[in-house]
Amino acid sequence: MQVFVVLLWAVLGLCAGQKPCCTPDQWEGTIQELQGFLVDDKLGTVDGSVEVSYDFTNQKLALTENLNETGSGNTKLRVIQDYKKGMQYVIQGNSCMEIVLKGSMRKQCIPDNATHIGSFSLGGMAAEGLECDSFMTTVAGNHNTYAISDMTRDGCYPVTQLSVNLIREHSTVTTQVFTDVTAGIKDPSVFIPPEPPCDKVMLEDTTELGSDVLKRVRQTFEQFI
Amino acid sequence: MQVFVVLLWAVLGLCAGQKPCCTPDQWEGTIQELQGFLVDDKLGTVDGSVEVSYDFTNQKLALTENLNETGSGNTKLRVIQDYKKGMQYVIQGNSCMEIVLKGSMRKQCIPDNATHIGSFSLGGMAAEGLECDSFMTTVAGNHNTYAISDMTRDGCYPVTQLSVNLIREHSTVTTQVFTDVTAGIKDPSVFIPPEPPCDKVMLEDTTELGSDVLKRVRQTFEQFI
Repeated sequence: MQVFVVLLWAVLGLCAGQKPCCTPDQWEGTIQELQGFLVDDKLGTVDGSVEVSYDFTNQKLALTENLNETGSGNTKLRVIQDYKKGMQYVIQGNSCMEIVLKGSMRKQCIPDNATHIGSFSLGGMAAEGLECDSFMTTVAGNHNTYAISDMTRDGCYPVTQLSVNLIREHSTVTTQVFTDVTAGIKDPSVFIPPEPPCDKVMLEDTTELGSDVLKRVRQTFEQFI
Repeated sequence: MQVFVVLLWAVLGLCAGQKPCCTPDQWEGTIQELQGFLVDDKLGTVDGSVEVSYDFTNQKLALTENLNETGSGNTKLRVIQDYKKGMQYVIQGNSCMEIVLKGSMRKQCIPDNATHIGSFSLGGMAAEGLECDSFMTTVAGNHNTYAISDMTRDGCYPVTQLSVNLIREHSTVTTQVFTDVTAGIKDPSVFIPPEPPCDKVMLEDTTELGSDVLKRVRQTFEQFI
């Protein structure tokens, strides 16, 4: 009987957390990012940090990027997306643009068709380590494009994400480490655009605005192709 | 007085872990590795895992690599280094080579001249997160070669390491995530080479043997240039 209980516990324990999960509906944190990419047949990098406030409950996202890119130098950029208003704001220095935002906000989830590729702990014996699950998202038949997302077993908080894309013209290898992630939104004013009002811009497709990081952060844990 | 004690504690707490540290003398774990590199003007990758047994006390290192490399395919390789005997063994499939190993084993430490670039926690509110310190190792005046090493505040266990090298002919951007790291050596037989005895090879410089990962793992947290 004891063996049965232990076995049952072991099986349940093994299964728990193996299913694709969704991050909490409200979280804040900083992404430490390193990307290698091709430019003029040389390997260039993007490195730096992105502060993220993700609020699915209120359909809002705010990003503060501070990135260094080979060839472009340092970029500081703030982006606020308000899906209920259908507006996004791009703030750089003293300039602010208001741009139409189409579509609805997608919930940050590991895709249903992702594969659970393992469980592990981070940090060794220190503080008993941090239990994580690792999920791989691929496109059928394509080994040159994939993402590996490591999430905490407890709560589905993002920990690291590796993304490889070798098929597009702009080949990239990207690492994101999610630091100081906490639940909830401490100060909702991060979603308030600056006064005076931003300049209105009639762009509707915003994917080319700012750096690629906006696209990556928006697509984090989503089906990325 | 209470305020003074709290302040003192805060200052000591802030300073603790900010100095470069050394990993425990004996640890085991798995490195999940992703590297982007240039090959034929295209971005290639090395990805996979390396099981590590690091025993500075007994001057031994064992690695089991399982890596996929663009252009080369899958490589499974086992390397055992015994610094007291001055021997290393490279095992691939049924073949085993015994190679002279020169020099003494270096202790795994963040270099003294590394810069503490920040402290953070991993894993959000889950399990209270994992407190880490981040150290940057650079070469004076060279912004194209650096490493960022994230270590646990408690115990100096390796968590992640990012390395960028854009100056050599073989430019690389490398990420290592250290999973399931535990203190001590569970089974010292990982350091015993296979029977029958390995073929003796008269090479003395082993840096070109196996994949680059051996070099990287040996140099982990060392002054890497």
